[in-house]
Amino acid sequence: MLIALDAMGGDHAPAEIIAGAILARTELQIDIALVGAKEVIEAELARQGETPAAFEIIHASEAIGMDEHPAQAVRAKKDASINIAMGMVKRGVAGAFVSAGNTGAVMASALVTLGRIQGIERPALGTVAPFSETGILVLDVGANADVKPNYLVQFAQMGSVYAERVMGVANPRVALLNIGAEDTKGTELIQEVYGRLGKAGVNFVGNIEGGEVHKGKADVIVTDGFTGNVAVKLTEGVADFLFRELRTAFTSKLQYKLAAMILKPGLLKLRDRMDPGTYGGVPLLGVNGVVMIAHGNSDARAIKNALRFASHAANSGMLDSIRVHSQRKQ
Amino acid sequence: MLIALDAMGGDHAPAEIIAGAILARTELQIDIALVGAKEVIEAELARQGETPAAFEIIHASEAIGMDEHPAQAVRAKKDASINIAMGMVKRGVAGAFVSAGNTGAVMASALVTLGRIQGIERPALGTVAPFSETGILVLDVGANADVKPNYLVQFAQMGSVYAERVMGVANPRVALLNIGAEDTKGTELIQEVYGRLGKAGVNFVGNIEGGEVHKGKADVIVTDGFTGNVAVKLTEGVADFLFRELRTAFTSKLQYKLAAMILKPGLLKLRDRMDPGTYGGVPLLGVNGVVMIAHGNSDARAIKNALRFASHAANSGMLDSIRVHSQRKQ
Repeated sequence: MLIALDAMGGDHAPAEIIAGAILARTELQIDIALVGAKEVIEAELARQGETPAAFEIIHASEAIGMDEHPAQAVRAKKDASINIAMGMVKRGVAGAFVSAGNTGAVMASALVTLGRIQGIERPALGTVAPFSETGILVLDVGANADVKPNYLVQFAQMGSVYAERVMGVANPRVALLNIGAEDTKGTELIQEVYGRLGKAGVNFVGNIEGGEVHKGKADVIVTDGFTGNVAVKLTEGVADFLFRELRTAFTSKLQYKLAAMILKPGLLKLRDRMDPGTYGGVPLLGVNGVVMIAHGNSDARAIKNALRFASHAANSGMLDSIRVHSQRKQ
Repeated sequence: MLIALDAMGGDHAPAEIIAGAILARTELQIDIALVGAKEVIEAELARQGETPAAFEIIHASEAIGMDEHPAQAVRAKKDASINIAMGMVKRGVAGAFVSAGNTGAVMASALVTLGRIQGIERPALGTVAPFSETGILVLDVGANADVKPNYLVQFAQMGSVYAERVMGVANPRVALLNIGAEDTKGTELIQEVYGRLGKAGVNFVGNIEGGEVHKGKADVIVTDGFTGNVAVKLTEGVADFLFRELRTAFTSKLQYKLAAMILKPGLLKLRDRMDPGTYGGVPLLGVNGVVMIAHGNSDARAIKNALRFASHAANSGMLDSIRVHSQRKQ
């Protein structure tokens, strides 16, 4: 199935994006349509020693910058790579879309072009936290700062489908991010959601506290987009901080430096695991199409992994399964 | 100034509590009143080779368990160590109170016995995150899951006073935890708070994202008790996770094990820095008295450090300064 890739989006576009596409095609045999300025794409392919024939190239005469106002840019630039690629998903020409570009613009374009799945009031961004073998899906991580109980129940249902279909977790355990274990903990809104998740057709395992997230007790963690965004960015920040402090500690004495050289492979492996690029992208769930948003600073490896999950999701029956779940009476 | 210490509160009471009191008295010359069952305290002091005369011992015939319902227990057990100690603060007999006991009960007792500072609508729990030399005060971290804009403005004012008076930060930079840098980011409530913090008499430096918290750009981070609680526990969890993974990685091969032995002092120093016990306790700000709540699992070192900050706070003029700030027109 063809996957549309935004060649113009991201801090390191087009070089790292195209490099990622080449990796995904050669290593994972994914068919990719590169969407963007044709001459730029062809020049970059040539620079990287690749023939243009290896990819479909879909010309887009405009591109949306990382700092442009999302909704305005999506409306004003009909021929932006994001809009063109989203149209390919809409028409069924592409099975999924991957972009490291302006997140808000991708979400806005998805809503306008693909629309919401019936019964889903708000799409959610999910991200995969690296605290278990399969990873832990956390959603929402930023699409919705202000939420209603309905939204969170739907996030739980969509997250459960994604974990099962795309991440390969059987009967995923769904937990509600909260500040205590009891059903009387948390905001009024969270307490209402707690009461409803038991009847939402998911394997609800109760509340999970911030200090338990890394212990592998849940496969899907449901939260509002404000808390989720803070939590995910904080996790990256704390890991960054610790690796930086380790580096400082390990270079403070000569004998430390020598010992650290021996340990370097082990450290790099762990650092790699904590790198958001390992999972490559976060799914936008709840729209009528598979959309995967990669980190703005994605390198080739992150793009390759985003393409991997996008391709996997496109072939997983995920959308139909979300459609079935969202028709449940809540 | 005498500091009242709850000898009965905490997972490791009374042994670690008393051990912490002995450390604080001998190393920091803090005068301490041990509040709890007299015979238990005396027996524990004897077991640790200390004469009872080194401390004031204030008998309390009851104690509140870690799992008791806070408000009910505070009402039902008038002679609980928490209530007795809080009464000492109220009467000015003690300059501060430290407890590793039931957090909710300490908060409830503080509200009933000490009352709120005039102009403060809700007390807040602050904690110190270990991402800079002086630490970063985050508040609220759990006293108020549901908040109003007023509360957060008051948290900013109280936090600023604490950072300046107790943590020794001149003109502390106050930031609002949010999901983006712009004033249009976040929930409606957070956007309203953003607009008001510029006029709140604090050194407001704008929004701070989860991924920036560890970069030392702010001294005080203001948030609601739900997000703050998740953030603080998550930080501890991520650090735990990484240290555990490092241990696993470093013991996977013989040459790693040998190298890790050399690096151990550096690792322990970092681990120590990430340990909540380094700061020992979190202040309950906004009540008419200095109250410091220590982690339930506090060891002697955590208790010693909580006593240090409590003593520091009691002598800092913090309460008067909060009273002045809370009278400001907002």
